[in-house]
Amino acid sequence: MVREPEKAVFDNVTLQCGQTLPRVELAYQTYGQPNAARDNLIVYPTWYSGQHHDNEWLIGSGMALDPERWFIVVPNMLGNGMSSSPSNTEEPFNQASFPPVTVHDNVRLQHRLVTERLGFDRVALVTGWSMGAMQSFEWGAAYPDMVERIGPFCGTARTWPHNFVFLEAVRAAIRTDAAWRNGWYTDKPHRALRAVGRVYAGWGLSQAFYRDELWREMGYASLEDFLVGYWEGFFLRRDPNNLLAMAWTWQHGDISANDRYHGDFSAALNAITARAVVMPGRTDLYFTPEDSEYETALLPNAEFRPIPSVWGHFAGSGANPTDTEFIDSALKRLLSS
Amino acid sequence: MVREPEKAVFDNVTLQCGQTLPRVELAYQTYGQPNAARDNLIVYPTWYSGQHHDNEWLIGSGMALDPERWFIVVPNMLGNGMSSSPSNTEEPFNQASFPPVTVHDNVRLQHRLVTERLGFDRVALVTGWSMGAMQSFEWGAAYPDMVERIGPFCGTARTWPHNFVFLEAVRAAIRTDAAWRNGWYTDKPHRALRAVGRVYAGWGLSQAFYRDELWREMGYASLEDFLVGYWEGFFLRRDPNNLLAMAWTWQHGDISANDRYHGDFSAALNAITARAVVMPGRTDLYFTPEDSEYETALLPNAEFRPIPSVWGHFAGSGANPTDTEFIDSALKRLLSS
Repeated sequence: MVREPEKAVFDNVTLQCGQTLPRVELAYQTYGQPNAARDNLIVYPTWYSGQHHDNEWLIGSGMALDPERWFIVVPNMLGNGMSSSPSNTEEPFNQASFPPVTVHDNVRLQHRLVTERLGFDRVALVTGWSMGAMQSFEWGAAYPDMVERIGPFCGTARTWPHNFVFLEAVRAAIRTDAAWRNGWYTDKPHRALRAVGRVYAGWGLSQAFYRDELWREMGYASLEDFLVGYWEGFFLRRDPNNLLAMAWTWQHGDISANDRYHGDFSAALNAITARAVVMPGRTDLYFTPEDSEYETALLPNAEFRPIPSVWGHFAGSGANPTDTEFIDSALKRLLSS
Repeated sequence: MVREPEKAVFDNVTLQCGQTLPRVELAYQTYGQPNAARDNLIVYPTWYSGQHHDNEWLIGSGMALDPERWFIVVPNMLGNGMSSSPSNTEEPFNQASFPPVTVHDNVRLQHRLVTERLGFDRVALVTGWSMGAMQSFEWGAAYPDMVERIGPFCGTARTWPHNFVFLEAVRAAIRTDAAWRNGWYTDKPHRALRAVGRVYAGWGLSQAFYRDELWREMGYASLEDFLVGYWEGFFLRRDPNNLLAMAWTWQHGDISANDRYHGDFSAALNAITARAVVMPGRTDLYFTPEDSEYETALLPNAEFRPIPSVWGHFAGSGANPTDTEFIDSALKRLLSS
């Protein structure tokens, strides 16, 4: 039985862009219970188009994120179709008129959730994959006195230029389909979504993944089977405007793009006093280990621990047990420190 | 003044796919003169959507490919809009009904050109970038007794699976535009071509290229300037069916996919007795150095010499003088051996 997520509602939220959403719903799921000292909170944000249930592979008894010990909150990112998104927001902020939302906006709302609604004033760990990693860095930079540890995997503290360019291909795939109608579609622009799947396929996994036909381990019988069954299917379940909204969030990710750091990226990294383990995928093609290594060197209290995997960005997806064990072990050590 | 290319016409050419084109035009340009011994021929095929004039940056007085010493023939690949292509072939083989053409088909025609029409029975060197490199390997495997040297750069002897997947994104970008009309367009599907540009942008150059903003060296003022001015402009000058035709050629590239090697890729590599210098780009994202290294190890008479460049695949494009000098020097050594 699927549990429905909780929803925290915030009225009149002014975003960094200057637009005010009259009502923002932040959907979240919790695992475990707060302890008496209220010092067992883990925040574990979602990734590009993922929803809270997609994060559950890293939560479980005996794992680092053990709900018997920790109170784990998985907030759904705005734009993911579960929290406020182009697809579920009332007029006039629906569809193509949904305002641009930053990673900073997301984390500010998550901060309000855990402080105002859940009654926590510190966070033992923020961790996440991909855009979830970006939100982990953002937590560390925006609330350095509150965040004890961060464990970002396969994600960076800003969106580096090549990563931005990759996302231009995703955006172009959607915008090329006339059925997208500049965002004012009623029927799903299915060609756009299939094209996003084909664009994403080459980026999500590494050259070696395809060379070694590791899609077989995911249960696919041929490359075309994987491209249609996995990639096209994956994006056909998404809403194009939501994908564009989250792509905007991603493309503009930068922990220093706010009135605390005024674009001084080094200063923002240097302000993250949380103990950190930074885990890029060794063969990740868009959140590259080189970019992660550069950032980690500027963190005052961090360890650089790349995931030795040929699963590319998907080293952090939960699809490959070896990589999951690597991440889980690193988080265990981090949480015991 | 632009020189018009020569054209060799072949009647009733049966392709590997079993279809017969009643008339094939092979457009080619020559540089320099045949010598009396007829031992100074260099064949330098074109790349994906490139035409003979796009190859001229590697030809010149004092360079390896010096027209004062060598007779250099640049054959245009079928599908490139200058040799027979969807865009210029008569009914019934025009547009979407242009038959699939292999690298092997291309090289067989080039072989007929240099033997039947130009009167050569040996080739001092076959070299080329990208799909031009694929044709270099094909020459070596198809005519081992005739080819003395090959100098492929940024290209492999077969299309490895991840490279195939990248091309799926290019194909999807075109097919997503309803104006493409399954290939039966009369008006140019410009959205498709712009989308191909945005898809290609992330693959053509490396992460480091974008991190270091090396598009500035190409004369662009901003990233968006580069994406529109270079990438969209580049593909807006192409014909979508031609791009699809050449993508098919590329995706099915394999020097062993013919009745000489029957799919035995190792045997085909092992049969290339030509002296070879194989030059992948160190940061090439689709013709990877790893794939090149694997192949080079199976060549009996080859040197592996990756181009130490952050220009990705474009290390072999002629855009970066340092890389051009690297390639030119390697070809000079190869030609003097």
